[in-house]
Amino acid sequence: MKIAILPGDGIGPEIVDQAVKVLNALDEKFELESAPVGGAGYAAHGHPLPEGTLALAKAADAILFGAVGDFKYDTLERALRPEQAILGLRKHLGLFANLRPAILYPELAGASTLKPEVVSGLDILIIRELTGDIYFGQPRGVRECPDGAFKGQREGFDTMRYAEGEIRRIAHVAFQAAQKRDKRLTSVDKANVLETFQFWRDIVTDVHKEYPDVALDHMYVDNAAMQLVRAPKRFDVIVTGNMFGDILSDQASMLTGSIGMLPSASLDANNKGLYEPSHGSAPDIAGKGVANPLATILSAAMMLRYSLGRAEQADRIENAVKAVLKQGLRTPDIYEAGTTKVGTSQMGDAVVKALA
Amino acid sequence: MKIAILPGDGIGPEIVDQAVKVLNALDEKFELESAPVGGAGYAAHGHPLPEGTLALAKAADAILFGAVGDFKYDTLERALRPEQAILGLRKHLGLFANLRPAILYPELAGASTLKPEVVSGLDILIIRELTGDIYFGQPRGVRECPDGAFKGQREGFDTMRYAEGEIRRIAHVAFQAAQKRDKRLTSVDKANVLETFQFWRDIVTDVHKEYPDVALDHMYVDNAAMQLVRAPKRFDVIVTGNMFGDILSDQASMLTGSIGMLPSASLDANNKGLYEPSHGSAPDIAGKGVANPLATILSAAMMLRYSLGRAEQADRIENAVKAVLKQGLRTPDIYEAGTTKVGTSQMGDAVVKALA
Ligand SMILES: CC(C)[C@H](C(=O)O)[C@@H](O)C(=O)O
Ligand SMILES: CC(C)[C@H](C(=O)O)[C@@H](O)C(=O)O
Repeated sequence: MKIAILPGDGIGPEIVDQAVKVLNALDEKFELESAPVGGAGYAAHGHPLPEGTLALAKAADAILFGAVGDFKYDTLERALRPEQAILGLRKHLGLFANLRPAILYPELAGASTLKPEVVSGLDILIIRELTGDIYFGQPRGVRECPDGAFKGQREGFDTMRYAEGEIRRIAHVAFQAAQKRDKRLTSVDKANVLETFQFWRDIVTDVHKEYPDVALDHMYVDNAAMQLVRAPKRFDVIVTGNMFGDILSDQASMLTGSIGMLPSASLDANNKGLYEPSHGSAPDIAGKGVANPLATILSAAMMLRYSLGRAEQADRIENAVKAVLKQGLRTPDIYEAGTTKVGTSQMGDAVVKALA
Repeated sequence: MKIAILPGDGIGPEIVDQAVKVLNALDEKFELESAPVGGAGYAAHGHPLPEGTLALAKAADAILFGAVGDFKYDTLERALRPEQAILGLRKHLGLFANLRPAILYPELAGASTLKPEVVSGLDILIIRELTGDIYFGQPRGVRECPDGAFKGQREGFDTMRYAEGEIRRIAHVAFQAAQKRDKRLTSVDKANVLETFQFWRDIVTDVHKEYPDVALDHMYVDNAAMQLVRAPKRFDVIVTGNMFGDILSDQASMLTGSIGMLPSASLDANNKGLYEPSHGSAPDIAGKGVANPLATILSAAMMLRYSLGRAEQADRIENAVKAVLKQGLRTPDIYEAGTTKVGTSQMGDAVVKALA
């Protein structure tokens, strides 16, 4: 089993190092190979997703990804900026299913900006379609406005689109995920305004016939953004498109107050996947040894479960993470009085120790 | 001065009645004329926005709108559903600037699901562009997918677009609003992915040159959804497009926990406007006399300020609302132990009394 290790920028390398430590501590050994991506890819090879990096990602059974982006690349033209690596990997590898759990660990309930009774025990899974929608739809660009009151002026434009098969496959992923949980799925759309999402609603409703054991409801995206604030625990699994999913999954992760704890998976049709923490590259704290590696370690656990068929090893890692939290170990982002503050590497070591 | 009164569906009529009471209690008398809209428009004339209603709205100096939508109209085809009235009024009247304050009244701090220290004193103004973006962009529909892996299948599609002049005019509204407040404007976009919003960012940056006294920052929409949960008080004025504004303004209003208190204005280029509560038609509690009329009363105050040039009358109404809150009067949606529960009509009467 070969794992591509793409540390990226900012805190990426130091948090990925900890996840690698954990993988190396398992009985079974995996073949790990690293390559630069994002700003690091640009610095090494003049492109955020260098050819060799893409080839490695394609050849591997799974990809462990850190984070990309740094102030120093902000002035590059868009096609060369670090985040293009993420978009390129999703597109080239067909990683259409993004799984974003938003879980609040009991020990960290105080970290949320929401009242404890509103979020304690929160456990939502957001499934975001990741290769369609307005992210990749053609045509797009800046052109002369062809009609209406602003005819003849410049206008920016993009195309939102979802084909039937694209909606069906993400709906299947979502219904199957719901079957393994509380069997409740909320499909989020904007069917009252968008043709794309009226079509989305029709197809999801049709796929539902194959999953009579799952309770499906449809919710408009504006209402979903409200309900995530008002009563987030009402949700079990949420499925939505690329654009709405970008917004809602970040909103949901922030409800926990501990985004340094949240992993994510981006899967293709054969459960090959890219695994990365839900947080970003935090260049302001890079190299200081204070970043929280747990989201990346938990991403490695998701990788073992979803792509490598090693569910017991995933459980072991997740239990080890729970154990270090119970021991009171905290990186600065989740520290509170009465707990023990540790650095990135100490936290990685503690998880390795707790594996035993 | 002529005001079009469009009560609509659900709780619309009963809350608008209270706002009308308040308007009638002012020294200056306005000409008020009512017409059916939404489901009521469909029931009366077979269309959610009957011709006579649109004509009245066009002829009036301002429009006071209740809410539209009811379960019984859910099965109508989309073109006849109640919310089409809102979209139609925005489009036909050129109401491109939506002003949505999210204010947490000190007396209601406990109603929020967020911790008091995170939201107490919250006072954000969200300015949403309301007649462009993917809401109205052509082409849109369901067609045969023209290319890619799903070629030949059916696909739903929509067009996102913003012309230069469209962005400029909403940017001017936003900078001028910021000048009257804390002089900080956050423009929310998705410039890292969308051509439309890279263009948006470029134009907003250009308009900023005319407002050197306002501090401008740009934020991606996913990050904005996170920051609204993490530290909402960091914002002063937010400006964004129609789609992102739909989501973020609802999210922001729910941060207060008292959406029954929040008014909104939708203005055209000459400050003619449509005023409505931020909440919906709540058909489940319609006719029971328990709905909170304060958002509608505060919408009438905004109308006096923005469209009718009666800022002192607006202040009077807003102060009367603050007074009834201080008196401890609460409709059920904002009730808590130790306060006095009142109905819709009693609340309207109390505001009238407090005007004196
Ligand atoms: C960096 C950006 C292109 C990306 C996205 O919008 O998908 C990010 O926000 C994410 O959610 O992974
Ligand atoms: C009813 C719907 C079309 C409308 C919108 O999306 O604009 C509503 O959500 C709003 O925000 O006023």
